[in-house]
Amino acid sequence: MGRLAKEQEIAERLGVRYLTGPATHSILFSFVTLVASQERYDRMLTSALAKGFTPENSEFLALDNRNANRFDGFDAMRRALVEARGRYIVFTHDDIEFTHDGAAELEARLDELRALDPDWTLAGNAGGIGYRRGKHHLAVHIDDPHKLGLRVTQPELVESLDENFFVMRRNRPVVNSYDLEGFHFYAGDLCRMSEIMGGRSYVIPFLLSHHSGGTVDEAFPLCRSRFERKYRRYFVGRNLQMTVAEFRFGLAGMCEGWGETPKSRWDFLKRNVYAPERSGVDDT
Amino acid sequence: MGRLAKEQEIAERLGVRYLTGPATHSILFSFVTLVASQERYDRMLTSALAKGFTPENSEFLALDNRNANRFDGFDAMRRALVEARGRYIVFTHDDIEFTHDGAAELEARLDELRALDPDWTLAGNAGGIGYRRGKHHLAVHIDDPHKLGLRVTQPELVESLDENFFVMRRNRPVVNSYDLEGFHFYAGDLCRMSEIMGGRSYVIPFLLSHHSGGTVDEAFPLCRSRFERKYRRYFVGRNLQMTVAEFRFGLAGMCEGWGETPKSRWDFLKRNVYAPERSGVDDT
Repeated sequence: MGRLAKEQEIAERLGVRYLTGPATHSILFSFVTLVASQERYDRMLTSALAKGFTPENSEFLALDNRNANRFDGFDAMRRALVEARGRYIVFTHDDIEFTHDGAAELEARLDELRALDPDWTLAGNAGGIGYRRGKHHLAVHIDDPHKLGLRVTQPELVESLDENFFVMRRNRPVVNSYDLEGFHFYAGDLCRMSEIMGGRSYVIPFLLSHHSGGTVDEAFPLCRSRFERKYRRYFVGRNLQMTVAEFRFGLAGMCEGWGETPKSRWDFLKRNVYAPERSGVDDT
Repeated sequence: MGRLAKEQEIAERLGVRYLTGPATHSILFSFVTLVASQERYDRMLTSALAKGFTPENSEFLALDNRNANRFDGFDAMRRALVEARGRYIVFTHDDIEFTHDGAAELEARLDELRALDPDWTLAGNAGGIGYRRGKHHLAVHIDDPHKLGLRVTQPELVESLDENFFVMRRNRPVVNSYDLEGFHFYAGDLCRMSEIMGGRSYVIPFLLSHHSGGTVDEAFPLCRSRFERKYRRYFVGRNLQMTVAEFRFGLAGMCEGWGETPKSRWDFLKRNVYAPERSGVDDT
């Protein structure tokens, strides 16, 4: 009895919390959005409320880029993960609009996905299925300026996702790379990390409108090059289909990685992958 | 003015939170421990309090395995990440004891590490530096039953860490694989994920006592085999030194991965990596 009292005492004194199961969720959806334009974001919010995303089932985290880029695409999910309370973390661009499906549909589509594959990690509305023999296979379910009316009828297994909209579970998280940055390929990066971790990515039939057809700006070629230099080491012999690009990784990464050490990897990152602003070294 | 009021209205109605910087920390250290034995855990807690880890600077999360293995090593950090409030998440075994260094020393060692390498992701007290030409290079700073008195004098860059004690920053998280399980290699898994993400792992001169010399039980060979089958695909041509094992990955993973797709990877996992018990995973 004396010993039991003493045991309880130290754990109580330190306020130990005994965890016996998974994290609980006080809310269903945690939206996280890189907000550059208040006008676009308000259009998204207004449409969200109209389609059933209310304070009862959703919270909205705005990564405030209205006056400056405080956050980039690679910061977003890791910033959200320690802030969100929802069961699902839903990343969106600020220029999407819920014109068709809403909260009930999203919950239903994710329930269907879980029934199909309990180990899913990422779900979105556009992605690459594969790139083989010069042919591009994509799965897309979206209304956007391309006006192609593309649809899927069931969850489609993909190897990349488009950044405009994607979902992960808070208790099954995937975190972005630390050695990439900017506003391209961060959903693709998440899909690579997810696959390495043993997860899988899907395009689900959840329909919204994206008011942009995809931006290929002056940063795109460098982002593409860095993504390739990074992932060809880890996916030797792999082809990769994204919505905006495709890769054939081949053998180059194996040559770069042979006999690798943490130190040699660090040197490689400094020469080839880090942004110049981070290392002060020009890319080669 | 009317438009501004309307804009504010939708964001206010939905309770939007605008995030403008990194997450704040209400406490310095979040300890997370797989607790199988109350007696051992209380010994650790008592020593922690004596060495300056108090409710003012620390919280203690106990993953409750006292009656059953509710959590394994691969669950721990992802369970802690959504629960912890500290700046640092400190994983420990329940059979460590703070016999030498304490809170002030740990904070100082981590400050020194950040000054040396701001991109560090993981820090521990024992790990593998490298495995080359048949030679095992380790960095160890611990008191344990082996009684070797091994020490480091500065942070040492390593490619793996021992599970008894390791630290990561809450705003720079690394998450364990979903396709491995059990009680071996989970710190090694974290180091592999960390390296892929662009982070780095270190052994730091923070001294504690570990009352076990490492357990090689009947699960070890299978865990070792699964770890190897998984990571030889992503680290073609790499040697890897752990505290309890070493690997020469060679070319086998490249052959397995050539022309890989998400579907072929899934099939590979089902055949070679998943534990039989995982076929009926509950979603939570």
